[in-house]
Amino acid sequence: MNKKVRVAVFGASGYAGEELLRILLRHPDCEIVAITSRKNAGQPVSTVFPRYTGLNLHFCEPDAAAIAGKCDAAILALPHGTATEFAIPLLRSGIKVFDISADFRLKSPAKYKEYYKADHPAPELLKQAVYGLPERYREQLRTADLVACAGCYPTSSILPTAPLLAAKLASPEGVVVSSCSGVTGAGRKVDLAYIFPECNESVRPYSPAGHRHLPEIEQEMAFAAGVPEMAINFIPHLVPMNRGIHSTILLHAQPGCTLEKIAAAYEAAYGNEQFVRVLPQGRLADTKYVFMTNCCEIGYVMDPHTGRIILSSAIDNLTKGAAGQAVQCLNIRFGLPEAAGLI
Amino acid sequence: MNKKVRVAVFGASGYAGEELLRILLRHPDCEIVAITSRKNAGQPVSTVFPRYTGLNLHFCEPDAAAIAGKCDAAILALPHGTATEFAIPLLRSGIKVFDISADFRLKSPAKYKEYYKADHPAPELLKQAVYGLPERYREQLRTADLVACAGCYPTSSILPTAPLLAAKLASPEGVVVSSCSGVTGAGRKVDLAYIFPECNESVRPYSPAGHRHLPEIEQEMAFAAGVPEMAINFIPHLVPMNRGIHSTILLHAQPGCTLEKIAAAYEAAYGNEQFVRVLPQGRLADTKYVFMTNCCEIGYVMDPHTGRIILSSAIDNLTKGAAGQAVQCLNIRFGLPEAAGLI
Amino acid sequence: MNKKVRVAVFGASGYAGEELLRILLRHPDCEIVAITSRKNAGQPVSTVFPRYTGLNLHFCEPDAAAIAGKCDAAILALPHGTATEFAIPLLRSGIKVFDISADFRLKSPAKYKEYYKADHPAPELLKQAVYGLPERYREQLRTADLVACAGCYPTSSILPTAPLLAAKLASPEGVVVSSCSGVTGAGRKVDLAYIFPECNESVRPYSPAGHRHLPEIEQEMAFAAGVPEMAINFIPHLVPMNRGIHSTILLHAQPGCTLEKIAAAYEAAYGNEQFVRVLPQGRLADTKYVFMTNCCEIGYVMDPHTGRIILSSAIDNLTKGAAGQAVQCLNIRFGLPEAAGLI
Amino acid sequence: MNKKVRVAVFGASGYAGEELLRILLRHPDCEIVAITSRKNAGQPVSTVFPRYTGLNLHFCEPDAAAIAGKCDAAILALPHGTATEFAIPLLRSGIKVFDISADFRLKSPAKYKEYYKADHPAPELLKQAVYGLPERYREQLRTADLVACAGCYPTSSILPTAPLLAAKLASPEGVVVSSCSGVTGAGRKVDLAYIFPECNESVRPYSPAGHRHLPEIEQEMAFAAGVPEMAINFIPHLVPMNRGIHSTILLHAQPGCTLEKIAAAYEAAYGNEQFVRVLPQGRLADTKYVFMTNCCEIGYVMDPHTGRIILSSAIDNLTKGAAGQAVQCLNIRFGLPEAAGLI
Repeated sequence: MNKKVRVAVFGASGYAGEELLRILLRHPDCEIVAITSRKNAGQPVSTVFPRYTGLNLHFCEPDAAAIAGKCDAAILALPHGTATEFAIPLLRSGIKVFDISADFRLKSPAKYKEYYKADHPAPELLKQAVYGLPERYREQLRTADLVACAGCYPTSSILPTAPLLAAKLASPEGVVVSSCSGVTGAGRKVDLAYIFPECNESVRPYSPAGHRHLPEIEQEMAFAAGVPEMAINFIPHLVPMNRGIHSTILLHAQPGCTLEKIAAAYEAAYGNEQFVRVLPQGRLADTKYVFMTNCCEIGYVMDPHTGRIILSSAIDNLTKGAAGQAVQCLNIRFGLPEAAGLI
Repeated sequence: MNKKVRVAVFGASGYAGEELLRILLRHPDCEIVAITSRKNAGQPVSTVFPRYTGLNLHFCEPDAAAIAGKCDAAILALPHGTATEFAIPLLRSGIKVFDISADFRLKSPAKYKEYYKADHPAPELLKQAVYGLPERYREQLRTADLVACAGCYPTSSILPTAPLLAAKLASPEGVVVSSCSGVTGAGRKVDLAYIFPECNESVRPYSPAGHRHLPEIEQEMAFAAGVPEMAINFIPHLVPMNRGIHSTILLHAQPGCTLEKIAAAYEAAYGNEQFVRVLPQGRLADTKYVFMTNCCEIGYVMDPHTGRIILSSAIDNLTKGAAGQAVQCLNIRFGLPEAAGLI
Repeated sequence: MNKKVRVAVFGASGYAGEELLRILLRHPDCEIVAITSRKNAGQPVSTVFPRYTGLNLHFCEPDAAAIAGKCDAAILALPHGTATEFAIPLLRSGIKVFDISADFRLKSPAKYKEYYKADHPAPELLKQAVYGLPERYREQLRTADLVACAGCYPTSSILPTAPLLAAKLASPEGVVVSSCSGVTGAGRKVDLAYIFPECNESVRPYSPAGHRHLPEIEQEMAFAAGVPEMAINFIPHLVPMNRGIHSTILLHAQPGCTLEKIAAAYEAAYGNEQFVRVLPQGRLADTKYVFMTNCCEIGYVMDPHTGRIILSSAIDNLTKGAAGQAVQCLNIRFGLPEAAGLI
Repeated sequence: MNKKVRVAVFGASGYAGEELLRILLRHPDCEIVAITSRKNAGQPVSTVFPRYTGLNLHFCEPDAAAIAGKCDAAILALPHGTATEFAIPLLRSGIKVFDISADFRLKSPAKYKEYYKADHPAPELLKQAVYGLPERYREQLRTADLVACAGCYPTSSILPTAPLLAAKLASPEGVVVSSCSGVTGAGRKVDLAYIFPECNESVRPYSPAGHRHLPEIEQEMAFAAGVPEMAINFIPHLVPMNRGIHSTILLHAQPGCTLEKIAAAYEAAYGNEQFVRVLPQGRLADTKYVFMTNCCEIGYVMDPHTGRIILSSAIDNLTKGAAGQAVQCLNIRFGLPEAAGLI
């Protein structure tokens, strides 16, 4: 009988942390050995997440050295910037690190500086990190020490577009991504903008030019398209729901592109994927159908009127967009069934 | 003392009808003389709209001839196609007609046939009808006999774009409109897709290529731009709220376009408008702030990264997008204060 | 032509304040002469309430003496405790005061101390204050200097029960009130418990024994019943909506009580009331039908199985439960049409 | 290695059916051998539940004889009345039947007739059926052939009250249950009352005297209290959320009842239960914390002011209130781990 993978969760007091616990608690091949929270150290986890009342789980201090001694893997659900501080000693101790923050997603230190307004504290790790999107980087993930789990908006944008850009069915020029996210996407943040009466009956865009997920989306789209750089428009919106991201994506079809070729490109890319569901022609994605699952749903349409391909994708931002993705990467890294804990 | 304008409401059993009653009941210069509903004729209005329990209001048969004898104006909140049947005899009797349906919005009978799959039953009326968007056609509305009130999505798209297209600050090529609508936008329709559990925690696009509001938007944008035709992408989404439309619009900036010139174009177009609120630079529109008002809120951003102008607009789909717009047009036609009943 | 009533609004940065502005801005016989907010003094009102962008309204310092010089009436939307501090100098200057807080609602200083954990700072004002529930105290309101506007839960509980208790159709013993409130009922409070993801898909009771509205409800029910004291159960719940309170109330029917007698008691009490809507037998109240109105809807049922009368009432907590009620009281006090600004 | 339990799901096109599939698809010890739907026979399950796109699952005709030949257990998610028709032949074929409808929950044929307006078609089965609430009837469930799974409102009412009634801490007289349910509680019903705009921003009671769950609640409370009959008030409300039931319950405390005795009674009853979570004193239940789980959360308070005990309970109506409960019963009946598939 296999030994279970011993997992430490760093920074578990937000929504991604809560979802990680939900997944790991039912994971047949993992055991949770530490759940850190500086603010809540010593408290039962139920003080923050009442749904875990009755389970014998406590937050501990985020002491990387001590925790490294008893875990195989660490999942970091920490604020950006902080994640690097913990990743460095954990990696040195031989722990496999799965980072849900944005710290290691960009390959270019210059882009990092442009969007995060600071030099990256460990630029050599940017090179080493594998981008945690299994449907694109599964082979590299099998041996990765440091995984930069793909962000929520990027996952919802890259999965539908990459196969079409790679197959030259769509142009890398003039791409538009318009996304709608549920409010957990803002984190468990106590701010006037996020109280119920301010969000209910409200739709509003934010960071319409220069959101921090933009360079990550552009980087991965450019890799897929085989071009050095892309410049796209990405416009996120907040909508009154808890979970879910829907992205509508417009691409210019290349000459010769047909619905059949699009279907074939998706079949080649995702025909064997458990967590990508390409919809039959004519059906579009709905966040409802991926709610609390690790799936990405993709629908597609061609608009001869403008020559554009219109894509529609849906994920659960906390599962495929954060905690589920991290566990999927971990499963791959440790040779577990890829869907373990995720069904 | 002025006599009140006698208004008949045709087809008042949907959400636009309910909103019309709400507005007209508090309108100082209008009185409701008939509220028709074939299905509910003879019943008190409160059987359909319990909020009107206690008011002495009854539905009557939609008998155009009889009703023409006692009204000055008719507002048609009927399904498309049916509106024309009533407009013809009412116009012949000299009644001013304000149609909330899509029957008279397109100038081109060919476009009508393309999108509605039938010949227009009264193409000569298409020419006669004035498009009911006061901020664009106020002078023509003062003497109009037949007003084709602008649709909800078109209002949210045309108001923010028209001044920029007219001033040649934005290109008529490559326009993208991505809109989110509350569920009353689907009407008071009893359909599985619209029951609460199917809409709550759901975001989904629909009719992403060829929605019936598309030719209306293109027609009015082209008029503003001074070009014979435009082809745009318009993608509506359903989001879990009752009322409101938010539209995010991407335009290619023309050379020389600046934020200052955009601000100036809006000031010239809307500086004196009571129901258009151009936001300070950096602020974006939110449906919350126009909820149950007749206002259209507009925000704007330039994205040097892609050369695009990004617009954000919000309206209440039942007020500025339907009933409020009709009453605003009626106020203009009858020489009443334009905001009467709408504050 | 009458001069308008000059109204100052103290503490206008919460949801009740926003609703007050909405009502007063369309009130034909009132003008707003001051809107105070210590924190936002000098700022345009639109910095707090973006919907008022474009209106020339600014917050000012809450300087009671200065403001007293230019107003006829003051509406206090201040936290409890603070309201008294302002009421005292305003009353001395002859200003009519309409307090939306709980400061003057209890007649008994002892009860005040029990529930607010402090001696009342001006117990003589408790005697002077008229309880601001027009359907119960209209005559006293015509000459009141200080009006303690009825609270939201109390309004939803007292209006349906008072006529039945007064007519001895229901027993004052064993009354149960179970209420559900939208989240604006918690104020515009920035607290983890009120962020969208914590409220959406959540129903939860709070303060089930000893809520601060309890003694107010008991006081007014006892007055109606003509008994010295009552002890009831009042259990409020938070539900995922913005506005509205629904109360379900159980009363023991007295011998001889019938549906006809209940109907007659309501007809006698509310037959001429504009803002109370007693529903036909068999219909129950729904917050939807009073949304953004000043109405209270009341439904009733008798349950022979247990001998209880079951009442169902609905109000909008910000309108009839706060701002609308205050304006209704003000209209009565100043001899204006009672519904002015409230239709 | 154990053989899996072969399960047939009858009537799987509603929300309880969807939840059953969700649970059974991840159940380690069960396999689904048939999913019936008269209307959708032959269609892939994804035509009704798009989330199952890609799974090779089809609806079949509800042919009891044919299906009996290949299953060990049948879960009936059929309308009441219809369930009996299927239960009879399945039981004759030796299949264990778990009925989610109300057909077999009442012990008294007279009560059945009173509430369902028809003679029960198989009154002998009423005697045979074991009430499917494991925390109350676990031993009988181990050998039951026919299980009448407890209803959603009853589960939320009986679990918190039974231990207190049994321990004589609370009186069986004068019990009040006030419940709030999400809209999936109404089933997947296409009706004007359930479309999004009619439910959102709405709270409304229904069937406040004589709801069909009332006799079931009274029966089980009376069994617990050891009295022949009870008469209670049960008032359900519809609130704008998808899933969840919260019940607030008022009981008269018996002399000598204390918080400590209540805690002890709960500890005795539920100390070893996996799916009942009695909250620490002072905490009340919240539907959020049981969302998509099989747990029932219970909080309690004593109100010395009125001598009442106030209970607060929360369940997910589709899980512990329907599909999860059925699977928990099935697990017990077949000797599987009780939580299999339910974590």
